[in-house]
Amino acid sequence: MKQLFLGGARSGKSRMAEQAASAIAPDYTLIATGWAGDEEMHARINHHRKSRPASVITLEEPIHLADALQKTASSAPVILIDCLTLWLSNCLHESMWRAERVRFLEVLNSISTPVIIVSNEVGSGIVPYGELTRQFADEAGWLNQEVAKHCDTVTLVVAGLPLALKNEAK
Amino acid sequence: MKQLFLGGARSGKSRMAEQAASAIAPDYTLIATGWAGDEEMHARINHHRKSRPASVITLEEPIHLADALQKTASSAPVILIDCLTLWLSNCLHESMWRAERVRFLEVLNSISTPVIIVSNEVGSGIVPYGELTRQFADEAGWLNQEVAKHCDTVTLVVAGLPLALKNEAK
Amino acid sequence: MKQLFLGGARSGKSRMAEQAASAIAPDYTLIATGWAGDEEMHARINHHRKSRPASVITLEEPIHLADALQKTASSAPVILIDCLTLWLSNCLHESMWRAERVRFLEVLNSISTPVIIVSNEVGSGIVPYGELTRQFADEAGWLNQEVAKHCDTVTLVVAGLPLALKNEAK
Repeated sequence: MKQLFLGGARSGKSRMAEQAASAIAPDYTLIATGWAGDEEMHARINHHRKSRPASVITLEEPIHLADALQKTASSAPVILIDCLTLWLSNCLHESMWRAERVRFLEVLNSISTPVIIVSNEVGSGIVPYGELTRQFADEAGWLNQEVAKHCDTVTLVVAGLPLALKNEAK
Repeated sequence: MKQLFLGGARSGKSRMAEQAASAIAPDYTLIATGWAGDEEMHARINHHRKSRPASVITLEEPIHLADALQKTASSAPVILIDCLTLWLSNCLHESMWRAERVRFLEVLNSISTPVIIVSNEVGSGIVPYGELTRQFADEAGWLNQEVAKHCDTVTLVVAGLPLALKNEAK
Repeated sequence: MKQLFLGGARSGKSRMAEQAASAIAPDYTLIATGWAGDEEMHARINHHRKSRPASVITLEEPIHLADALQKTASSAPVILIDCLTLWLSNCLHESMWRAERVRFLEVLNSISTPVIIVSNEVGSGIVPYGELTRQFADEAGWLNQEVAKHCDTVTLVVAGLPLALKNEAK
């Protein structure tokens, strides 16, 4: 069973995904893709960390998400990935996007461990100027479409409330 | 009964909220939070004003929303607040956000007058650079989540059409 | 029967609209409003072109959408317009928006040929500074509302998945 939680900034998507993971197993494994590159990001990561229960096993992996997923798949009862768009951003900065994207989708398809994925909706505003920004918006949209295909449920989160986009949960 | 209408720019959320208010009482009280600080804003406020019926009692309050809400709660048959995100923006500029936010949620919870609230969805695009912009996007998302919890119905408005996010209307 | 497919950048709205058109008639007429003004736009247009079947008749019309619609209405089994927001952007740049908008809505209402329309949702993020950008966001929102009124079905596309906003299909 694979679940995708999509939403804008501060939409409550992480909290909803954490609840879904906890409901399966309180000792879930979190793969956090945030990179504490600056003060602000550091504060954001800490904000998220404090709100999580102590039973959660956290793995920080900004780039090699496929490896982290593969490594934890056999032992974790359920894996929470938070989030795809930070990972995408990190990979684009390091010019590792093409390879990492392919690997991630391969591993995601090959494992039977339940996976809960958080991703940002970034394409519903004016896309600002700048080639990298444009590429980020394009890749994020394509990635969300692709991952949505591989997931059993897809939920759009708005103001902390869920809107079902897909529900093929068995 | 408290209702929240959320939507992007020019999504038709104000009109839908006005219709909901009018359906309860045509002589509703509108608390308008827009600040006619420049020509453009002035034009936007006028655009909204012209489309409202003459029976509406309008109160302009860019900052002290809690006070305005408290003051009108006993006499108004229904109160329309348009909108939360302009109020947030005004409060951030005047460094009065923390206090005003707490007060607003307190008053909103304490009154039994029907309240209809309009707010912008601003987090589903690329968040542009700039610390204040970032803070605005964060606070808007958190505020929408919090207010949504206190409302009986939450409606996302897209292209003038409603999408129910929550419906606990009695 | 008129259908509107709304969505953010890379939401999968074009593909879904193409499938809807193909389902009516594989030899549908596409009115493409993109303007190959620069390399990036050229690549984007080609990307879309390659993914379409050979039976599709393509007409490129960045500005005079009403004329193109009128001209093809009698012969085409179904017309796909992709997309409204590129057309809006082109018209704003050429200062031809007011007149073209009026003409388009007139023709859209006057023809009985099935029309499938693609448009961008651009108002759910922070609107960046700049008068033209602001005007674009306003006009796009108003246009989507207006076109939605004239359509029998309106579908919001998120991560390649449909969310029905309106369904008055007979």
